[in-house]
Formats: sequence, structure tokens, C-alpha cells
Amino acid sequence: MGSSDKRFLTEYEGSKLLQQYSLPVAQSNLATSKEEALTLAETIGYPVVLKGMSEKIIHKSDAGIVRVNVENGTQLSQVYDEILENAHEYDPSADVDGILVQKMVEKGLEMIVGVKKDPVFSHQLIIGLGGVFVEVLRDFSIKMMPVSEEEIYEMIGSLKGASLMKGYRGEEGINIDNLLNIVKGLNKLIDDHPEIEEMDLNPIIFHGDKATICDVRIGQGSKDEKPKYNNVRTMDELSSMLNPKSIAVIGASTNEKKNGGRLFRYIVENEFPGELYPVHPTADEIKGYKAYSNIMEIPSEIDLACIIVGAKYVLSVLKDCVKKNVKTAIIYSSGFAEVGDEGKELQRQVTKIARDGGIKLLGPNSIGIASPSKKIFTAFGAALEAKKRTLGHIGFISQSGAMGSALLSRAWEEGAGFSRWISVANEADLTTSDFIHALSEDEETKVISAFMESIQDAEAFKTASEKALSQKKPVIIYKTGRSDVGKRAVQSHTGSIAGDDNVYSSVFDKLCILRARKIEELIDVSRAFEIQPLPKGNRIGVLTASGGACSVIADLCESHGLSVPSLNDATVIEQLIPPFGSATNPVDVTAEVIAKPEMFKSVIETLIKDRNIDGVIIMLTTNADPGAFIIAKSILEVFKTHQKPIVLGRLGAQMIAPKAMEFYHSEKFPVYPTPERVVNVMSQLVKYQSLLQKHSEKAGVL
Amino acid sequence: MGSSDKRFLTEYEGSKLLQQYSLPVAQSNLATSKEEALTLAETIGYPVVLKGMSEKIIHKSDAGIVRVNVENGTQLSQVYDEILENAHEYDPSADVDGILVQKMVEKGLEMIVGVKKDPVFSHQLIIGLGGVFVEVLRDFSIKMMPVSEEEIYEMIGSLKGASLMKGYRGEEGINIDNLLNIVKGLNKLIDDHPEIEEMDLNPIIFHGDKATICDVRIGQGSKDEKPKYNNVRTMDELSSMLNPKSIAVIGASTNEKKNGGRLFRYIVENEFPGELYPVHPTADEIKGYKAYSNIMEIPSEIDLACIIVGAKYVLSVLKDCVKKNVKTAIIYSSGFAEVGDEGKELQRQVTKIARDGGIKLLGPNSIGIASPSKKIFTAFGAALEAKKRTLGHIGFISQSGAMGSALLSRAWEEGAGFSRWISVANEADLTTSDFIHALSEDEETKVISAFMESIQDAEAFKTASEKALSQKKPVIIYKTGRSDVGKRAVQSHTGSIAGDDNVYSSVFDKLCILRARKIEELIDVSRAFEIQPLPKGNRIGVLTASGGACSVIADLCESHGLSVPSLNDATVIEQLIPPFGSATNPVDVTAEVIAKPEMFKSVIETLIKDRNIDGVIIMLTTNADPGAFIIAKSILEVFKTHQKPIVLGRLGAQMIAPKAMEFYHSEKFPVYPTPERVVNVMSQLVKYQSLLQKHSEKAGVL
Repeated sequence: MGSSDKRFLTEYEGSKLLQQYSLPVAQSNLATSKEEALTLAETIGYPVVLKGMSEKIIHKSDAGIVRVNVENGTQLSQVYDEILENAHEYDPSADVDGILVQKMVEKGLEMIVGVKKDPVFSHQLIIGLGGVFVEVLRDFSIKMMPVSEEEIYEMIGSLKGASLMKGYRGEEGINIDNLLNIVKGLNKLIDDHPEIEEMDLNPIIFHGDKATICDVRIGQGSKDEKPKYNNVRTMDELSSMLNPKSIAVIGASTNEKKNGGRLFRYIVENEFPGELYPVHPTADEIKGYKAYSNIMEIPSEIDLACIIVGAKYVLSVLKDCVKKNVKTAIIYSSGFAEVGDEGKELQRQVTKIARDGGIKLLGPNSIGIASPSKKIFTAFGAALEAKKRTLGHIGFISQSGAMGSALLSRAWEEGAGFSRWISVANEADLTTSDFIHALSEDEETKVISAFMESIQDAEAFKTASEKALSQKKPVIIYKTGRSDVGKRAVQSHTGSIAGDDNVYSSVFDKLCILRARKIEELIDVSRAFEIQPLPKGNRIGVLTASGGACSVIADLCESHGLSVPSLNDATVIEQLIPPFGSATNPVDVTAEVIAKPEMFKSVIETLIKDRNIDGVIIMLTTNADPGAFIIAKSILEVFKTHQKPIVLGRLGAQMIAPKAMEFYHSEKFPVYPTPERVVNVMSQLVKYQSLLQKHSEKAGVL
Repeated sequence: MGSSDKRFLTEYEGSKLLQQYSLPVAQSNLATSKEEALTLAETIGYPVVLKGMSEKIIHKSDAGIVRVNVENGTQLSQVYDEILENAHEYDPSADVDGILVQKMVEKGLEMIVGVKKDPVFSHQLIIGLGGVFVEVLRDFSIKMMPVSEEEIYEMIGSLKGASLMKGYRGEEGINIDNLLNIVKGLNKLIDDHPEIEEMDLNPIIFHGDKATICDVRIGQGSKDEKPKYNNVRTMDELSSMLNPKSIAVIGASTNEKKNGGRLFRYIVENEFPGELYPVHPTADEIKGYKAYSNIMEIPSEIDLACIIVGAKYVLSVLKDCVKKNVKTAIIYSSGFAEVGDEGKELQRQVTKIARDGGIKLLGPNSIGIASPSKKIFTAFGAALEAKKRTLGHIGFISQSGAMGSALLSRAWEEGAGFSRWISVANEADLTTSDFIHALSEDEETKVISAFMESIQDAEAFKTASEKALSQKKPVIIYKTGRSDVGKRAVQSHTGSIAGDDNVYSSVFDKLCILRARKIEELIDVSRAFEIQPLPKGNRIGVLTASGGACSVIADLCESHGLSVPSLNDATVIEQLIPPFGSATNPVDVTAEVIAKPEMFKSVIETLIKDRNIDGVIIMLTTNADPGAFIIAKSILEVFKTHQKPIVLGRLGAQMIAPKAMEFYHSEKFPVYPTPERVVNVMSQLVKYQSLLQKHSEKAGVL
């Protein structure tokens, strides 16, 4: 599907194709002689536009073969000749198929609509305003096709120049129905012609009640599609890997400096509750477990083979696993696709053996899987040396072992817990999508969090996301690799603006996946979803004990699109707090809370009950014990008896409120250390709710 | 200076004023009769523009008293009458002084230049592109006047539509000299006419070699200036407060539940190294110190009086202090300007007594001052209960006591140290500016960090910032209150876009002050300035042990405007790291660093020496002891022997590298826990260097 296979239709061909889908192309016809051109122009009516048609000349203006505002026959005759001359001069080898005679369209608001086929996520629709908006300001919006009516409104709304479409300073706006009809037609056209790789309708002129597509550029690729492995796995299919009853560790070692030694030790020390079989060429036993020289010798069935031998031995070990009817395997060994072509070939062979042999395979180059509440730690990595651990319900998937491992340790340190921690690494067989799908059915998991570099199979990812959505398990993903944007060269204009990163954002939105913009959100936001009810809207009640904190949170709410509305009834709070506090939203109970921490409960309760409020942000400042502990209990009491989220921030050091912090920890109630993290978390809760709502309201694609 | 005093010049008056400064106003003249208008039009040459002039009609287009493209005498006669009619209809009370006959300017690129007088920071210049750019996209740039040539280039460069000015798609760009001359003239005009409150030159049409100001709107206020207290204090003047040799605590208490009891305890327990005198109406002694019933009875001179009594007693206490010749005082008591009009009056009286009596006053409503390395803790607040404390060189000033106190505790917990911690609170006398100024001369302080809600006295702030700059002490400020933007109504267009927040950003840039965009930066960035040399440019070498981390840091560098260039010589690194690592920038030494932590040192050293690199970001991931400790030592060794900054991030939990963390702590080398914070810190170092450079290069104002 490279651009070498690409063929560009002439504008005439493109126009014909669009007309089949009732798209309002400017009235035009192809003339193959000057006489014919003159006749056509008379029929259409002057002024007209003349455009030379040549398959070889894609950038017509650059070649000087477009002329607008041709006013009469004399002018047309002259221009006709010039166009032919210019075409020849620009590219002597270019045949001119004819000259398009087009009705000159009256001025109006110009828009650009484009389509670009992403190598992974297929067709993306791009909408922007014409002229400087797209070209200078790169102001455009992008969505995965097909695009629904509601999505078109969203796309328009997100443009910086949105107000122009409503009419501005006496200039006319656009008739939205025209745009809706164009997109509707494109949805259908692309569904029928998936071979189209790029399309520019630029400009589309909106004038009065009409919209006219004045220029069409379409590039087609081959119809061949890559084979896809979209048989995304279920929890049932992966349960032998995620909840194995028997494990063989091939490469288990008595030497704990070796990865195989550490892996085996982690499995043992964490008290794996099933059968465990070390496989070692010479040892009789390892850590008290009888060792086998080959997996074939193990007398029982094996759910999971942990393969942690040199890359060159993996192939034969895996063959043995097939013979042994092992159900699943993790390859920890490195030296595969990540090290170059030779490794890629080895990985291809390994994958084929596993698939042919019915083994579900994780890795290679994986750090493994940890399921703390099940006491299954088929993983190695320094994170497992951590002494402090927390159980929890966050399913975490990482394509980067190092980032994933660091985040595991960090989560524990912060008092967060992962139900499953999975290093998918090279994704030779099992991918992030497989685990999103499986964890959606995993009863240990309430929310899914992932660190991702790229997706290979869009269909699998879509299926997995839909499963998560149907199970109401939020998925939050940090996607890296933004700075690769623009590496691929594309011919069309709208194509070049649809960088990978924008496509990911568009796809995530469509699939109700939250995009983490900071690494810490992978833990912060997931923890919130573990325990918080969803806010019904974006109206936030803010509670602090400081005017400064009020101001900081109000600023942040504004920049995150959260509303801080007036309270329905501020008089109750007025009676609870000192006269120099603020009883209006944001509420400032003042430093008197230090002397009277008890008042805090009544204030939160009043705030959370207010009918103008969908959720509460509490931002504590210094907040030391013993008052901090009293406040902590108040917050949890109110939280447990109301179905609205309370997101809590606390700027002061933990060391001055050990009792309070211990209490929050025991309740698994997250306390975020900065105002930025608090507001970020709340805004993601609000966003998820709005994505869910849009999804459920979706009246189907146009 | 409210808008009630404001008078708008007619366009004719405005044009005359501009002409005095050689500003290229469109050729025009005032006609007071139709005949005169016809003569003028003949002289100027058709087509012309006619504009009705009336002091009462500011929005001429709305009133229908502007007509463009008047082509001949017949048309002019008709239009002349229409304008008079329209003016009368729009506002029957409006006198029309005449009709301006103006040369019709050829089309070209339109820009808007405006001036707005900020109530604090005086005149701000606003530059934007005309049409949709300012009005729909709010794409404009703002700088405090006078504006230098270099600053104009910066302003233009920061516009989203900047490329239009260079010419775009065959359209002509602008001749920058014309714009420079206009701004030069405005600098002078505003210097001569500080009473101007707002000015719109909209549009200025740039066509060919010319620029023409086609419309002028000027609003003048009164010439009266508020009295300013810009006698900003020196370290010498404040040394009795910052380094007191004798302290009287008026309101000291034996009851530690009272603020006065806690304050006295903190002073005592922290081993204040001077004379200490509790003042209490009845007690004989407090905590072993002889108590006095009145400050007058104390036998020695008093450098600092700490006043922590009920608001109603403050006045008389302060009078005693004046009699006693006390040099400085801190009023901790609340109940002043923060509680309403009565409190404001009380504060006014208190301030007058202090100033008349020669007492420098901090507060009221202050939490006090802490100078840990001096063992002076004239502060109360729960932060002081912290057991873990760090000494350091960050001077911290907060207008919010609660935020300041929380940050003090947080700093200690993170291993950062404040040389001075100052709660300026109500700023009745001493302000943030006084302390920025004084701390610039404080040998304990290397960098100044502030939490700020607003500034009252621009001159004082400017003097203070310049002092800091001259002492090469970076100032970093978190300014809150952004969401107040747009509260004040202003008449002119450019006025309405110059919200407070943009003015602060413009002022900070001008004064080489870094603006913290997140609360955590107040500590993060300050710590970096404590120890890091400044990078010479923005070329960053990135070092990680993970492809994922490389990608994350590269993305962040891109979005922060940091460059991650190719290395001058990657071959050395190539020989140090495994073949599947990345020897090009960003460098990935791979997980092999766990087995061979020693290689890290050679890689950092090679990277930091590279002539293409101005600074190094290291992002560690899991990083557990004992390897973590070896790496830590390597980093510090390289850091100490090279004059380039190394900003270090570490995503893994602290608990898996206690030895390494302890080492970093003992070296006071900050370790940032997320990639976002690392890149942010580096970008602020780079920004400060570039601000310094611009400042030193500044060839003076135009």
C-alpha cells in the first residue's frame, strides 16, 4: 500500500465518481477540442474555469493549467492554447486528456474536506476551513470514518475558526445540511471504494443555500489488504496464562544473578498456589522444587511455560512445548525483532510454531505477568524487589518493559494496586488488544491502563475496546511516538496534516478510550476509576481552606473545560464557615478548619448535595494531624453515602499527617499531591462520562 | 482612572496626533461642508472613504457613518447626506464635527496595532493580524512598552499567522521596516502622552513598500497618577526582620493551642540564636524566658516585634512599638483587609502608624518568616511540625499563607530547602517586590521563587526584578487568578484581548522572570537553579535505558521547543552499548545497564562532551539498588566535572533504590519522578538562559 502503487484520478474522473454519490461537484464537462470547450462554456454560461486534465499532473496550479474567471469566447480561445502549452512545458511526457470547463462558483466561505487512509486505522475524515486556516494555522479536525452526524458537529465545534461557519461580521456562514450531506456521501463512497488512499475536496465553497465542490483530487492504492490477525483473545482463552494452575520454568536457575534465577525466585517467594516445575539441564532441584532436564519429562499437564533461555534455544524449547501440549507460553528471552532482521526472522519462526501448535504466546522480550492478588508473579524485573505492595483492580499493559516495570514499583509506592501487570513487549502473538479484551472480562480488573507505542491491528483494537466499553471498564492509554509525526511523505494536502498522532486521538475518542497526556495519569486516573462514581456533568464544586488554593483550582478548572458554577443554595455553607471565608463556589472554609475540623463534614455534605454540582474537588493545603485525620474521616463518610465523585488533593507533606495518610491508604482513597493532578483526574472522569453518553446516544452512522 | 473619566478622540484628532510622530496615517482631511468635501476629494483623488466625525460615536461602522470606495462627486454628494442622517438617527444628541475625507487605500495585508494601559503595568503594545486572526482566532501578541526592535520580531514570530507576514501563496508579505517605524513612533507618543488609555490602529494596510493606518481610535484618561510606594527595600533595610538579633513576641502564650503559644514554641525549639522576650499581660515567664507585660518594659533594643494579638489590640501594641523604637514588625493577627471594609480601614491605620514610626511591617495576616539555616523561625503553621528538614538556597515568597506553608512542608519532604520562607499576606507595607529585591542581595539565597495573586506596584516590581537580574538570581513565579480574565469591561477591541493574565506573561518576559505553569515548578525549577549551570542553548542529549523512555522524552522535548539533535560523534557510544541499543540521540543503553552499570559513566561523559549538546536529560526507569547507586555516583562525578546541566528523572519507586536516593539527597541533586517534570525543568533552564541573553544583547529601546 505504498505510494508507489498509487494512481491519481484526473479531476474529471474524480468528479464523475463523486457525482455517483450525489456529491455537489461544480457543474463541468470535459472538452477535447477548443470548439467543444466553447460550446460547453456557452451552455454552462460564462464566467467559467478551465483546467487541463492530465493523469501525470497532480498539482495543476503549479503547472499553470488552471485559469479562473474566463469571461468570454475570445478569452477562452486564448486560455485554451496557453493551458496546452503550459502543460507541455511543465512535463513534456504528460498527455492532456482534455480540458475541463467548469462553472465559475460565486465567492463564499471555503472549506476543505479530505480523506486519508491510515495504514493501521484505515480511512480518516478531515475537515477544515479553507485558505489560511488549514494552510497557515493547521486548524483542522479529524475523525475515523464512517463519521456520524453528531461527530460532524463535534468536528466543526473543535475548529478554531468555528465561529466563521455561523457567519461572522456580515459574512455569510454555511448551511450545515450541505456539509452533512457531503460527509454522508463520502461515508458511502469510501465504504464502496476502500482502495482510495487520499482525497482532497478543496475548496468546497458555501454560498447561500448551496455548497459546491470546486476541486477534486483522489489517489487510489491497490485493493489488496494485509492479512489481519483479528481473532482477539477472550479471558477464557488466556486463563491458562493469567491464572495458570501449573507452570514450567524453562531456564530456571540456581544462580539468582541470572534472570532465570530471579524469575524462579519471584514465583516461589510470592507463594505461587499451583504446581511449579523448574526445567534445568543438570540440576536435581531448585529452591526445593524437583527439577527436570526437559519439559517433556514433567509428569503433569502444563498451563504455562516460562521460557527464559538464550534466543538460539527458544525454537527447540518451544517445539518441545508443542509436543507437551503446553497451553500458553511467555518468552522472556531477548534477541528477536528488537535486534534487527535476523531476530525478526527468528521471531517469525517462533510465532509460527506457537500458532501452529496451539500455544498462545506472550513476548518475546517480555518481562512477564504479575497478578498480585492471585500470588502469581511470572515476571522478573527490579520492581518485584519492592517491599511495599498494594492490591488493586487496575489492569496494566505495557509495550515497554522498562516503563511498565517502573510504573509497577511506583504504583505500589503510591498505594495503588494492579490486578494484572502485563509486559506485552514484541507482541509476536498476543497483543495489547488481546489483553484489553481479556481483562474486560477479568473479574479482578475494574479499569485498564496501558503504555503504548503503536498498534498493528486496528480491528483487534476496536473489538477489544468495544468489549471494554460493553463491560463499562474504562481504558486509559498513554501513547508515545508523537514526534514521529510527519515522517511519512504523502502527496495530498489533507493527507499531510493527518499525522499519526492525530489519528490516534481520533480513534481513541471514537472508541471511548481516554488518552493520558502525562505518564502519571496512567496511575492517577486509573485509581480514580477504581472507586469513583462518574460525574453526571462537568459542574464542579470546589472546596479548600485557602483563597490561594481556590484561585489555583478555578484557573485549572477553566483551562480543562470544567465549570465552577454558582451553588443552588450557598446560605447553608454561609452559616457554617467564618464570615471572611467564601460560601460561594469555589468555597473557602479558611484556616479556621485547623481549629474546627468538624465543620468540614457539614460543608462537604452541603456541597455534594447541591443540585448544581456533579462532582467535588477538595484541595487541602498544609493539613496536619490531628485535624487532617478528622477531615479524612469526614471526606470518606460523605463520599460513601453519596453517588458523586470526590477528587482529593493535598499539597502539604505526607509526613505531617501520617495518621490521615494511613487512613486514606487503608480506604484505598487516592490523595493527589498537586492541584494539577486533581483537576486532571476530575476532567478525565468527566470526559469518560461524556464519551459514554455520546456512545449510547449515537443514532448510528449517517 | 476608570472608564468614566475616559474621552475618545475623533479619528481626525487621533490622526493629527499620530502625524506628529510621523506615523503613516491615511491621507485625509476634515470637511465641514459638502463643497469642502468635494474639493478635498478632488485634491486627494478618487476613490475616497468618508467617515463622520463625532466625539459621541465611537463605533462608526455600527452607526453607518463610514463609507468606503466613494468613486466620484455625484456619489460623494449622496453619501455625505446619508452619513449625516445616519449619525442623527444613531444618536440624536451626537454633534457631527465634520466628515473626514480619506484616500482609499489599496488592498494588502491587514494588521492591527493597539495600545492598552494596564492599571498596574501601564502601557502594553498589542500586535495582531487583521480580520479573522484577531477577531476569530484571538491571535495576538502583547508586550510592555516601550518595545524594542528585537521584541517586535519576537511578537511577530509568536503569531500563529506569522508566515502570512513573509508572504504566502503569492500574496505579498509586509515590509517589516514599516512596522518597526510605527512601533518606534508609538513608543515615543506614549512616553509623551501617558494619559492615553487605549488605542486601536485597525487596520494598518501593508501594500508594496507602504504601510497605511486606515483607522485610528484613541481613548484618553485623566493625567493623575496614583501615588506609588516604589521605595523598594534593600537587604540592609530588612536585615532587622530577616536576621533579627532580638525579638519580642507580643501575644506569646503558655497555651500551645493558641497561635501565640505555637509561634513562641517554634522560635524557642528551633534555638533562635538571639535575645528573646515574650510579652504577656500576666505571665512571669514562658518556656523559661522572662515575660514582660508590655514591650516598653523590655530593657534591650528590639529588632523585630512579632505581634500575635487580637486585631483590635494591634493598633495600641504597634504604637508602643513605635515608642520603643522597634525596627521591624510582623503582624500575624487576622481581621484586616481580608475581612472587608472595616478591616481595610484598620489596616490603613496600622500601616500609617508603622510608616510614620519608621517600622517596616510584614502582614497583617502573615504566617511569618522562616530562615532555617539561621535557626530563625518567626513563623507558625503546621509545616513547622515537620521532622525532616533540608537546608537550601531557595528564597520563597508567598502571598497565600496556606499555599506557602504547604509548599514549605513539601519542599522539605522532597529534600529541597528554603533559605528564606516569607508569608507576605496582606502586603500593607512590605510586598513581594521588597523581598525579591532584598533576597537578591541575601547571601543565603541563590534563586527566588514566589506564589503570587497580584502585584500592586509595577515600578517596585520592576526595580526588584532588575536587582535580581543584576545579581544573576533567577526569579520564578506562579501567578494565579487567570480565570478573572475579562472581568473588566473595556471599550476598544485590542483592549479587550489584553487580559490581565497576558499582561503578566508579557511583563514577566520583559523582566526575565520565569513563569511557573504548575505549582510543583516552584520547587522543581528552583532546585535546578540551585545547582545547575545554565545550558548555552536548547540542544539536549537524552540518555535512557529504555526505548519507551527515549520516545516519551523525545515527544516532550519537541512540545517544549527543545531540540534533540544528532550527536557530533556517535561512534564512541556505539562501542559502549549493546548493538540493539541506540547510540544516536536519544541514546538508549538498554536494560544491560542493570548488569553493567559501570558503562553508564562513559556514556554520559561522551554525551555531555559532545559539541552538539548544551545539556543532558537522563531518564531512568525502574533503576534499583545496587546498580542505581553505582549509576548515581557516575552521574554526580560527570556532573561535577563538566559545565553543562544534567537534569535527572527516575520513574521507579524510591523504595527500590534507598542507597541511591540517599546519595542524591546528600548531594542535594534533585531527582524528578516523571518525564514531564524533567523536561519542564530543562526547558525553564533553557528559557532563563535565552532571557538573559536577550537582555544582555538588548540594543536599547528603539
